[in-house]
Amino acid sequence: MGKSAEEIHPVKAFGWAARDQSGLLSPFNFSRRETGDEDVRFKIMYCGICHTDLHRIKNEWGGSKYPMVPGKVQKFTTGDKVGVGCLVGACHSCDNCVNNLENYCPRKILTYNATYHDGKTTYGGYSDHMVVNENFVVRIPDNLPLDAAAPLLCAGITMYSPLRYFGLDKPGMHLGVVGLGGLGHVGVKFAKAFGAKVTVISTSPNKKNEAIDHLGADSFLVSRDPDQMQAAMATMDGILDTVSAVHPLAPLIGLLKSHGKLIMLGAPDKPLELPVFPLLLGRKTVAGSGIGGLKETQEMIDFAGKHNITADIEVIPIDYVNTAMERLVKADVRYRFVIDVANSLKA
Amino acid sequence: MGKSAEEIHPVKAFGWAARDQSGLLSPFNFSRRETGDEDVRFKIMYCGICHTDLHRIKNEWGGSKYPMVPGKVQKFTTGDKVGVGCLVGACHSCDNCVNNLENYCPRKILTYNATYHDGKTTYGGYSDHMVVNENFVVRIPDNLPLDAAAPLLCAGITMYSPLRYFGLDKPGMHLGVVGLGGLGHVGVKFAKAFGAKVTVISTSPNKKNEAIDHLGADSFLVSRDPDQMQAAMATMDGILDTVSAVHPLAPLIGLLKSHGKLIMLGAPDKPLELPVFPLLLGRKTVAGSGIGGLKETQEMIDFAGKHNITADIEVIPIDYVNTAMERLVKADVRYRFVIDVANSLKA
Repeated sequence: MGKSAEEIHPVKAFGWAARDQSGLLSPFNFSRRETGDEDVRFKIMYCGICHTDLHRIKNEWGGSKYPMVPGKVQKFTTGDKVGVGCLVGACHSCDNCVNNLENYCPRKILTYNATYHDGKTTYGGYSDHMVVNENFVVRIPDNLPLDAAAPLLCAGITMYSPLRYFGLDKPGMHLGVVGLGGLGHVGVKFAKAFGAKVTVISTSPNKKNEAIDHLGADSFLVSRDPDQMQAAMATMDGILDTVSAVHPLAPLIGLLKSHGKLIMLGAPDKPLELPVFPLLLGRKTVAGSGIGGLKETQEMIDFAGKHNITADIEVIPIDYVNTAMERLVKADVRYRFVIDVANSLKA
Repeated sequence: MGKSAEEIHPVKAFGWAARDQSGLLSPFNFSRRETGDEDVRFKIMYCGICHTDLHRIKNEWGGSKYPMVPGKVQKFTTGDKVGVGCLVGACHSCDNCVNNLENYCPRKILTYNATYHDGKTTYGGYSDHMVVNENFVVRIPDNLPLDAAAPLLCAGITMYSPLRYFGLDKPGMHLGVVGLGGLGHVGVKFAKAFGAKVTVISTSPNKKNEAIDHLGADSFLVSRDPDQMQAAMATMDGILDTVSAVHPLAPLIGLLKSHGKLIMLGAPDKPLELPVFPLLLGRKTVAGSGIGGLKETQEMIDFAGKHNITADIEVIPIDYVNTAMERLVKADVRYRFVIDVANSLKA
């Protein structure tokens, strides 16, 4: 006989959930499972808001299940400071899992809007507590503030992993970062920490001072200025492209040296135009990368601790979350909202 | 005072040249330089016809200079058996040249339709003899027949180089080859020689027997058959895509496993549609590659000698060349024409 919902998930929990494609979030009572042998239960202190949350609550990628409690990037206290990123489960037997690449496991279980091993929907960190298998819990270095470290478990690993995998982590390289948002701004920080010369590429000239003076980029290119782009042709070893809108790739491919790599990290909903000739002439690569495995996520956060890398954040109470989503649509945040769950979530 | 054309190039030569965009080739008297300290002069025995020749004689890529003597892939006798591929010069000082990647040198000099160091137009191998700097001359293994080895200096290195550079040379890998033409058929042979399981992917079901029985491929996929394509999803480590027509990439990206690589070797004249989401979800790569450097070209032909790899060819007399070009437009050749220059070129 199957167990009832109450038997499987007997522990009362509380959070904020989206109820339909309006994406509007409101208080939501639900429940979580008892801790199993490998589970960790913890109180949620902070939860970052990721652009993915916005897509999911409005069902812009399809497959959204309501009610939905978003929140992929949480920090917790249970004595130790720990966090959970985008994943809470995987098959642990496929090639990817065996190679610590749970993020590419075909049966990976996302932190919210997914179905867990027990058949129940996963609910994320816009909530009072979570129960997560210990293999998916990351330890946060003591010197990092929990709120500003929270987004690293999503944005940080998204940028760190491709820098490592595609060999763009060598001192002295010239790297471009396209788009100065949640992903881009931590991309600049990690690239600088690896010893690269970093150029921010943006459609907005008014981001120049911010990029150079505040984030430490070495130079700035306005992508809509043909003269600037022409002058920078064939100068970059790699480019991290964080733009999720449809945009032209040809100018970016032109910025690459021979054997250079353009790494796509945003997810435009329509295909982009790929000119093939420039790829052949310079043996250039266009590739994608999505978050990272748990081993590498721990490595990333340890590296961030060592280099004092955090995200630039705006801390908000949970009842501001719907306004935050509206501002996120307009990219009106520098550079990540983080919900102060512990101090603002009230049942 | 500058030297006159006769002083720079005093040695009479004879070949076949295209005179205009009709691409029609006809007998042509010209001249070549005296041999300098590093030059080699040789008699041309065989010259392969490459699809690039067709594009160039008709100025389909722009920049064609008439009269044009095509022919990038020649074999010669001067006692030793030697050959020349697509390149006859480079700058020898840029990063690419220093790393034996003359093929990516921005100042590389193509074997025909280019301007040599002396300011004169380069003329290719549809001719009685050539003078080439020794650094651009490749030694042909004794066991390879000159005619069937000729196309390897172009098609062979085009397929060998990406297999090596992108790590697709490991025994046991599953590799796809898209398009069974001049490039594709030698791609199958090199991939098999590296120990891969090879699947040919083609729009033409009638190429199946040829691919498997004659070329030694392990399996065959009809790219227009959704069921066959679906069944092969996520099974390949890499794909060599030789198609130069506009074609969909999404189904090919779908054939790749996580971290798989789609290598573009044909040059469609319009951008292709690139779906980004599948790249992110599987950390997949789309890249290009163009011929190879001289060191690697020698390595390739030595490898071909060791594994008895040659191109499948149809040997023709030079006065058949215009008919051959017409047949090439229709892909009516298995798989490369080679001109029997020594026995058919008459002044």
